Amino acid sequence: MALLIAATARGQQFAAHAREVAPDLDVRVAPDLGNPAEIDTALVWLPPRGLLASLPNLKLIVSVGAGVDAILADPTLPNVPLTRFVDPDLTGRMAEYITLQVLTHHRRMTEYRMLQTERTWKYIPEAAAHEVRVGIMGLGVLGSASAKALRALGYQVRAWSRSPKQQEGVVSFAGDDQLDAFLAETDILAVILPLTDDTRGLLNRALFRKLSLTGRTPLLPGPVLINAGRGGLQLDSDILAALDAGELYAASLDVFQTEPLPAGSPFWSHPRVVVTPHNAAESAPAAIARYAIRQMRRLNEGQALENVVDRGRGY
Amino acid sequence: MALLIAATARGQQFAAHAREVAPDLDVRVAPDLGNPAEIDTALVWLPPRGLLASLPNLKLIVSVGAGVDAILADPTLPNVPLTRFVDPDLTGRMAEYITLQVLTHHRRMTEYRMLQTERTWKYIPEAAAHEVRVGIMGLGVLGSASAKALRALGYQVRAWSRSPKQQEGVVSFAGDDQLDAFLAETDILAVILPLTDDTRGLLNRALFRKLSLTGRTPLLPGPVLINAGRGGLQLDSDILAALDAGELYAASLDVFQTEPLPAGSPFWSHPRVVVTPHNAAESAPAAIARYAIRQMRRLNEGQALENVVDRGRGY
Repeated sequence: MALLIAATARGQQFAAHAREVAPDLDVRVAPDLGNPAEIDTALVWLPPRGLLASLPNLKLIVSVGAGVDAILADPTLPNVPLTRFVDPDLTGRMAEYITLQVLTHHRRMTEYRMLQTERTWKYIPEAAAHEVRVGIMGLGVLGSASAKALRALGYQVRAWSRSPKQQEGVVSFAGDDQLDAFLAETDILAVILPLTDDTRGLLNRALFRKLSLTGRTPLLPGPVLINAGRGGLQLDSDILAALDAGELYAASLDVFQTEPLPAGSPFWSHPRVVVTPHNAAESAPAAIARYAIRQMRRLNEGQALENVVDRGRGY
Repeated sequence: MALLIAATARGQQFAAHAREVAPDLDVRVAPDLGNPAEIDTALVWLPPRGLLASLPNLKLIVSVGAGVDAILADPTLPNVPLTRFVDPDLTGRMAEYITLQVLTHHRRMTEYRMLQTERTWKYIPEAAAHEVRVGIMGLGVLGSASAKALRALGYQVRAWSRSPKQQEGVVSFAGDDQLDAFLAETDILAVILPLTDDTRGLLNRALFRKLSLTGRTPLLPGPVLINAGRGGLQLDSDILAALDAGELYAASLDVFQTEPLPAGSPFWSHPRVVVTPHNAAESAPAAIARYAIRQMRRLNEGQALENVVDRGRGY
């Protein structure tokens, strides 16, 4: 019985924490598999294709990320339970990121940053949070915590999800039928959707043009896009074109079609784009190690696993 | 019975809103006083010295700002009730500003902004909010709302005030005796104090050196200063020296010893200083006009005025 960690650069870090939490556990870090037949659990982030299929007695796969699209993309993926990492640490960090980026654009900080560079003292009239409508796409654990944090600051919060969900203080929309109505009432769009066949390329110019069509506050120059989900949700070139055309006022992007973002990308130098390196909700290695070991124990003790992925749905 | 508005550049804006709220009211904008004997209420922001003393029948002064230090500094100030502007709009904006600046530094955004300028994709390990201790100086209406918003994101919140105050989820300190203990447990210091004889120059290098002495999270490089109170609270040169010496990691400054901040100030170009033009909680002109007229009516109807300043205390 061994735990294999295949998590690119952070593998050794996760292993150190796992050994601290469970000193008796046989912890291995890819590519040093030892005898593959002894591995029953794999903790993975962007595992090489075919690696998991090479483990004959694998019983459980734990994803380091909340999104599992990269794992599901492996056609040789063994048919064993796959759970994704969800915990208060990661959830809290995502709520921080979304709140920070919403505040940044609502309070016109990219413009103030430019004025600071120019040594110019100039007041820009700003809306109050209660005048700004934030629309969250994806009302799972992460979206729900973000909605709650934004409500605490007084924002008008709307949410859209695949299936209908209810949350106190949040106006909810669901399914394809209600997407346009949701977008029309959204000034700042914060996206935390999983990447699936249904959501790939969803954040395109046609969608941006549907934002904020009704009753926008005059003190926000245009709609804002925040993507903290997956790069595959968006068309980078459509975001740039929409910014140039004034269909988007600003954007905060944590994810991109190609990561790391190439040095030649126009996003880096756009005055109203905030680029972050897919760090919106990077969780603490210790929390990830604890989570993987908890799932391993639940499996061995016959308890239900947490946050099991529905492969048909993709999350 | 007339309302005089003496509020520098925004006077005409306030007047337009006042006339909308109370069409029958005689509203005048300085320096066009008309007959001074007819003015019974003055709504003021940085009024010229002696102006208020020139109004023989003045019964009430309403301050546009929450801070009244500039008004109290006029030695000719008539001895009539002085109320300061406090309302949900201004309070909400201050909570937004404090939350935004705390998140900005905790999530290392000035460093990410630099990396963006350099087109560099690099992950910086960050603390989670629950590991960061925010200390709020000044637990009045504004500080209290800010504390609540920060609690919603999971921060450990401490507060210091002149007299003891209690708030759910906030560890409270009070008075000179407990100041050092408060500072020792504070990683991010957010200041919303009024400017009085007791607080002038309080934010100096000796104080910065007392910050974060016990148990700081290793993922925050050093203490952070946020001043959204008054420029007179701080010594600009001490902040710069503390930043250079690494005694402060970063700062967000909305106020300065001289405003507008002179073009030659080193703050403008400091990579880890966020400069904003005293806009932390600039309230909507309509809300200010409504508030002034409400106080005027309360006075005329013999009701108690709201938020009357204690001149001895200075706020």
